[in-house]
Amino acid sequence: MARTNKDFNNKRNELLEKIWNIFITNGYEDTTLSFIIRTLNISRGAFYHYFSSKEECADAAIEMYVKRWSKEITKQDVKELKADERLTQIILIGIQTASNNSEQNEKINSSSNAIFHQKLMVSIIKQFAPIYAEIISQGVNEGIFNVTYPLETAEMILTLSSFYLDIDLFKWNEGTITSKVTAFEELLTRSLGAENNTFSFISKLFELR
Amino acid sequence: MARTNKDFNNKRNELLEKIWNIFITNGYEDTTLSFIIRTLNISRGAFYHYFSSKEECADAAIEMYVKRWSKEITKQDVKELKADERLTQIILIGIQTASNNSEQNEKINSSSNAIFHQKLMVSIIKQFAPIYAEIISQGVNEGIFNVTYPLETAEMILTLSSFYLDIDLFKWNEGTITSKVTAFEELLTRSLGAENNTFSFISKLFELR
Repeated sequence: MARTNKDFNNKRNELLEKIWNIFITNGYEDTTLSFIIRTLNISRGAFYHYFSSKEECADAAIEMYVKRWSKEITKQDVKELKADERLTQIILIGIQTASNNSEQNEKINSSSNAIFHQKLMVSIIKQFAPIYAEIISQGVNEGIFNVTYPLETAEMILTLSSFYLDIDLFKWNEGTITSKVTAFEELLTRSLGAENNTFSFISKLFELR
Repeated sequence: MARTNKDFNNKRNELLEKIWNIFITNGYEDTTLSFIIRTLNISRGAFYHYFSSKEECADAAIEMYVKRWSKEITKQDVKELKADERLTQIILIGIQTASNNSEQNEKINSSSNAIFHQKLMVSIIKQFAPIYAEIISQGVNEGIFNVTYPLETAEMILTLSSFYLDIDLFKWNEGTITSKVTAFEELLTRSLGAENNTFSFISKLFELR
């Protein structure tokens, strides 16, 4: 039984790799279920053995990829640091990871991938928030942060960095993005009850570009 | 010439009313340009006289409706109030307006309207932010708020209330939404540099439901 479950999961993950690539390359909106099945080179019955619909397989592919990213981040996270340094570190890893995937990002940002992009952002917020919340709680214990709701504060910070700072979504022009980032930095500092300038590296990063 | 422009705009607005209803009823993703043209009962040439694409006519219809709502809000906004009372008032009008349109909301929240819904939220954030920003600036002048970036702070508050507090988008369950709202209320208070409990009416509203 254990063996069969493992086989099932392995095969499912292997299909999810391919499904991710299909959506990224072809655009979520323009991809029909028939096209997915044809490209996977499996029977319709085999597809339904693993997934229930186009939307469900998209959600599963996104979940798998975001889990992978969050594992990667957790691996690079030096837990011995103080909370403000840990948070700085995790934000920098996030920015780094995003800019490493610029080709993929371009495809995700195309207008035929709006739904897929939105699903991806929601998944990132939900899966990354507990990691951020743990660091925020550490900061509260260390007396450098003052936060009543660590998980929800983490979710809100991630919502702003994913949605509000998304230049394509809001069609912000290059000239205004610096003030958005600086304002976000101030809100981040206030929402964590941190000292001024704790996160001033964020706006500095943007000015350097 | 002025006459012609007016005729053009009137006809265009009349078409936009119908286009809004088509998208709401039929779902943005499932609506083809041919279907729009057929339902409007005009020629393809006439459509292209007023609009350049499906996406452009959707954006224009959304802009017209959100402009209408923001005018409605401005009309109900009692400018003689102090800034915290004005902000309270405007948030309440927003909640009221949203719950008045529950039937329409249900259709906008359906999965075949994800892109349309996202476009609508972005438009609301961009068009409502200047109204909020003006009130925030008044509060700064009155010494009850402490805000460095009124417009951006308004945009971030609206991003959180539109995206983060959207139960359907995040699939939050009913049990957790109260803590999200309470956390949002705290972040709102801190981001405005307002006194504690200035906005406690928000979580009270949600507890009453």
